[in-house]
Amino acid sequence: MKHPLMLATLIAIATTSLPATAQFAKPEDAIKYRQSAMFLMMQNFGRVAGMAQGKMPFDAKLAADSAANAEFLARLPWGAYVEGTDKGGNTKVKADIWKDKAKFMDYADKLQLEMGKLSAAAKTGNVDAIKPAVGAVGSVCKSCHDAFRE
Amino acid sequence: MKHPLMLATLIAIATTSLPATAQFAKPEDAIKYRQSAMFLMMQNFGRVAGMAQGKMPFDAKLAADSAANAEFLARLPWGAYVEGTDKGGNTKVKADIWKDKAKFMDYADKLQLEMGKLSAAAKTGNVDAIKPAVGAVGSVCKSCHDAFRE
Repeated sequence: MKHPLMLATLIAIATTSLPATAQFAKPEDAIKYRQSAMFLMMQNFGRVAGMAQGKMPFDAKLAADSAANAEFLARLPWGAYVEGTDKGGNTKVKADIWKDKAKFMDYADKLQLEMGKLSAAAKTGNVDAIKPAVGAVGSVCKSCHDAFRE
Repeated sequence: MKHPLMLATLIAIATTSLPATAQFAKPEDAIKYRQSAMFLMMQNFGRVAGMAQGKMPFDAKLAADSAANAEFLARLPWGAYVEGTDKGGNTKVKADIWKDKAKFMDYADKLQLEMGKLSAAAKTGNVDAIKPAVGAVGSVCKSCHDAFRE
């Protein structure tokens, strides 16, 4: 952690990604909140990934808008992983998440960093700049799902 | 429309709230997208409204963060009201929405303007500034739901 800007970024993420707990009227709301945020994030990220992979025609404005949405949405799910919400709804979260919350939050922070890089790359309008950033995001998704999702 | 800044705001909203259509792999995705965005928006707006109404203790940072989230989320649902998605999932949208899309989009624009004012009010940290802005948002929600939701 040598770079003061990176430290500032991490502090900003830590303070925005961990809102006060007990924000949810009932456990089902917390589950629905994080699932809704993940769905919206994946829809937006999926568009950018589809373009990067040549599965959709590249549209620079749509890629930049979608990546910006995904960057914002990547801040939302984490405060909704309230302890005890591993039952209810159709959640696939493993109870392990609360035994190793630090590891989970490391993934959450990493995702936000990589999504920020993807959004910056998408703003350039250069699809070749987007490709590695898509890969980095996908890698964090997979690592976290492998560890914490049934 | 006398104020150039207001015009700039409206142009910015128009260009961000109407992404290219055909962004969704299937109709159910469009329905889930707008419902997810509405749910997240209402969870965030609901916190601010609860504080403004004295139902929750006032927490200035939480109010500002939640209002900023709601402001961002208020941009997302509209592109997902793709024609023909009045059936499927558990959507309550009336088919009238596509007969009077201009009126619907007026509400969408109005909501984004009022949510922006709420977010600005919440940044002041003064709950008395938040109260009228909450009322204005709630009024747009109700008008649009009365017109276009079963």
